[in-house]
Amino acid sequence: MFIVGELINGMYKKVRRAVAERDKTFIQSLAHLQVEAGADALDVNVGPLSADPMQDMTWLVDRIQEAVVVPLSIDTTRADVMEAALKRLKVPGIINSTSADADRLDAYIAMAQASGASLIALTMDKKGVPQNREGRLELAAFILETVHKSGLPADRVFLDPILLPINVAQNQLFDILETVKDLKLLSTPAPRVIVGLSNISQGAKNRPLINRTFLAMAQSYGLDSAILDPLDEKLMDSLIAGEVVLNRSIYCDDFIAAYKKGKTRR
Amino acid sequence: MFIVGELINGMYKKVRRAVAERDKTFIQSLAHLQVEAGADALDVNVGPLSADPMQDMTWLVDRIQEAVVVPLSIDTTRADVMEAALKRLKVPGIINSTSADADRLDAYIAMAQASGASLIALTMDKKGVPQNREGRLELAAFILETVHKSGLPADRVFLDPILLPINVAQNQLFDILETVKDLKLLSTPAPRVIVGLSNISQGAKNRPLINRTFLAMAQSYGLDSAILDPLDEKLMDSLIAGEVVLNRSIYCDDFIAAYKKGKTRR
Repeated sequence: MFIVGELINGMYKKVRRAVAERDKTFIQSLAHLQVEAGADALDVNVGPLSADPMQDMTWLVDRIQEAVVVPLSIDTTRADVMEAALKRLKVPGIINSTSADADRLDAYIAMAQASGASLIALTMDKKGVPQNREGRLELAAFILETVHKSGLPADRVFLDPILLPINVAQNQLFDILETVKDLKLLSTPAPRVIVGLSNISQGAKNRPLINRTFLAMAQSYGLDSAILDPLDEKLMDSLIAGEVVLNRSIYCDDFIAAYKKGKTRR
Repeated sequence: MFIVGELINGMYKKVRRAVAERDKTFIQSLAHLQVEAGADALDVNVGPLSADPMQDMTWLVDRIQEAVVVPLSIDTTRADVMEAALKRLKVPGIINSTSADADRLDAYIAMAQASGASLIALTMDKKGVPQNREGRLELAAFILETVHKSGLPADRVFLDPILLPINVAQNQLFDILETVKDLKLLSTPAPRVIVGLSNISQGAKNRPLINRTFLAMAQSYGLDSAILDPLDEKLMDSLIAGEVVLNRSIYCDDFIAAYKKGKTRR
């Protein structure tokens, strides 16, 4: 499971404060903690309240890279901020994200090609998020076809079927699990599939319980990657147990310690 | 999810002691606790060390029924003990279990018909447990065919694909998940599928974590029922969250309390 740490996000008040005050110690510590907890990459999002997304994003990207060397997932809707951030990366990053609209898709594929970044592509377009598996698969097929034509290697693409909150779309969650499985069948080699895990519990109580229960299910349906909180220990323990149950990580008595050791050894 | 409480089992020293000393208070309390925690039925097993399985089983069945009125899952390999126990039940019970061997299957189907009990049928025969999905499905198809011919209603059968321990059969666990899904396709209406959850973590460390992670996955593959420890609160919380994620129980903010309340109202 490729884990993208979600915590450097201006949606959180502490991060917003740190960015506003240019408190690099706080940000770098948050980067370190996530990587130590098992994050393979870090999402970076200035948040919707940023007064200057360009300045805030480039500052964040530079400060994080002084602390850790992992791929950064540049999480912004502004193409100019995306492009500027990608140029500053020391190791190839992740574009988070493009929709399935042809014009956006072409522009972000070009950015991925120019920068060496991977690309998260959402199964949604100008009409919104399809409300069933067929609609999501149709957009995913269009994304993969466009990627294929562009020459961008398929293993640089993450398809995101868009996980919806349980309190508004409870009846779609099983369908999303089956979508994960079906997405893996759309091409050979199989595309990678990612979800923003915390979405499922937006506005819900018992958020960590819902998150880790869904994650175990999604793992068993073939999910490759998730944007999540790696500091949630119960979530990480469940994720590791899931990898072992699914035979993606070898079982031994101390499988949690072994998995974590394997990560830090890379 | 139909939950069968596993704790009244002579494999546990405290239960063995209580049975040997005819300590009905201990047994009845264990019955009460499991039902209050959400068990729909209770497994009853005198354990391999019982000197007199017939006397121990009938004593247990009588004492448990003084305390709670739920189906009892009579868990014994002795046909005479099974038959005697079934006759004492106040509400229809569960035969735990038969193999897919024709002679055993016929005998236990007859007992189910005579007593009104449901029947857990393991996908194994004299040759042992098949080591892959195809083998398990073949035995399951034979079980369902035999049940159909006998006239026993299909909804009185639980198919058990036999969950193996992670430390000896790690590479079979995903196959078992897919087997659960495929078993549901063998007949219309779909047969019910059950597993003995604790099997997966026999001899392992972190048993509760492995149990609840696999259970979430198995729920998403269509598992109907499990024999488990209902006093494991984290397991039960995960089970409830799983039912809600899969839209089998309605989401509300206090979904755990609501689910438990729904159980006790029956």
